[in-house]
Order: sequence, then structure tokens, then C-alpha cells
Amino acid sequence: MINNIGFIIITHSLLAEGLKNALFSIIGKKEKVVSIPINSEFNLEYLCNLLKQEIENLNCEYIIIFTDMLGGTPCNISLRICRDFSNVYIISGVNLYMLIYALNLKEQNEIKDINEYVEKIISEGKKSISNVKEVFNKKFFK
Amino acid sequence: MINNIGFIIITHSLLAEGLKNALFSIIGKKEKVVSIPINSEFNLEYLCNLLKQEIENLNCEYIIIFTDMLGGTPCNISLRICRDFSNVYIISGVNLYMLIYALNLKEQNEIKDINEYVEKIISEGKKSISNVKEVFNKKFFK
Repeated sequence: MINNIGFIIITHSLLAEGLKNALFSIIGKKEKVVSIPINSEFNLEYLCNLLKQEIENLNCEYIIIFTDMLGGTPCNISLRICRDFSNVYIISGVNLYMLIYALNLKEQNEIKDINEYVEKIISEGKKSISNVKEVFNKKFFK
Repeated sequence: MINNIGFIIITHSLLAEGLKNALFSIIGKKEKVVSIPINSEFNLEYLCNLLKQEIENLNCEYIIIFTDMLGGTPCNISLRICRDFSNVYIISGVNLYMLIYALNLKEQNEIKDINEYVEKIISEGKKSISNVKEVFNKKFFK
């Protein structure tokens, strides 16, 4: 089983910290989860070095980077640094549920294939986006 | 066109504030966008009243509530308060891109049908979740 996976949440401003904060408030504090807030005050070179450093510090077999949106600076930095590292994955559109799902599956020690794992995180993230009242009405009134 | 729409972001801990913060850092500060952080220290009654108050303060024709995940306390509170208000919509699985999309469309004054608008926000939120390296490789090498 694959277990040595590190997670980096990299987003515009305080979102990364907010996600980590909410994540830990639900599943408890976890090791190897890093948040990087991207502030427009810093230059690209500095931010690239920061990300590189965090990847090195995690020292994991695989890294999954969660970023806010395709084409944004946090995503572009991730792509620039990790494009050629086949053990680093980048997922855009991060939401809380996909983080909980990813961490829970890792804890259960049930990851056999890293590509399948990444695809499952993406599909669970998408599934968690819903019209809540519709879901509720279908569940209780149909 | 429908324009009088208010937005409430309600999530576990600091995530709501992080989302609003990142949103405003990209599209600038906007009116009628409220964030409510849900802290487990507060009791349910207090939180329900808080949400009710914010909805009243917004004083909008329509309200869209963005919440982190189905079944979580922020989502349950929203459902409890707004189940019977046909002008209030609740979307779970909030991510940054769906907020940007929602606000941009409202600014462009192009919303004709509120149900279509909500469905479009949901589908754009889902679409924004992707395997970034795959998207990049398809775009540039295929």
C-alpha cells in the first residue's frame, strides 16, 4: 500500500490556511499537510523557491498539491516547479470535502494505485458540489 | 434581469473568511457578500439566529448560500433556516472558482433565470476541479 504521501494546499491569500484550519477542525491535526498562502506582494521567484522548499521538507514518495483554480498564480507556480516530477500531482478547484476524503483514505491505508487515488479525489470533490435543497428533497420526499 | 442577489459563505472555522478574502483579492471588494465562520463553541440556536440575521440584513430578492459540505453543521443550519424560503438556494462543496463565476455573472447583469444561474454555478464549480498536469499536457502536447 502507498502511504508516504504529502499534501500541499496552495492558494490565493488566506484560503489555504482557512482550508487547513477547517480540515483539522473536523478530522484533527495531521502530519504532512502544508498550507502556502500566495500573496501578490511576493515575487514569482520567491514563491517558486518557497514551494520547492516545502516539497523537499515533506520528503515524501508522492506529493499532491491542491490549488484554487486553473490559470491562477498558485496553480502556475505549482506547474512550473512540478511539471517534470512524475511523483507530484496537482489538483485544481480544491474544496474541503476532497481534502477530508484524501486524508481519510490515506489514514485507512487503502491506496494501491496513486493515479486511481488522485482521480477518486477529483471525482469525490466534484460530487460534493450539489444543490442542497434538491438533494434533501429527493432524499426525504421522493 | 435579476440583479438583487446576496451571497452568504458559511463554513467550518476560518474557511469562509479565507474564501471571501481570496475572492476579493481577485475580483475586488463586492457588496452583499457575507462570510459566516461556524465555530463549535457556539450553540445551534445562536448560529441559526446569526444566519437569519444576516439574511435579513442582506435584504435581497434572492440569496445564495455557499457551504462547505453536505451534512456538516454549516449546511444543516442553512437547511434548517432556509428550507421553506423558495428564494434562498444552498450550494455545497464551495470552491473559489464558483464564487468568482457567480459574482462575475451577476456583475455582467446577465441573469435571466435564477434556477439556471444556480445550476450553472454548480456545473462551473465542478468543471474547475481538474488534474492540472493532464489539462496542461492535453493543451500543449496533443
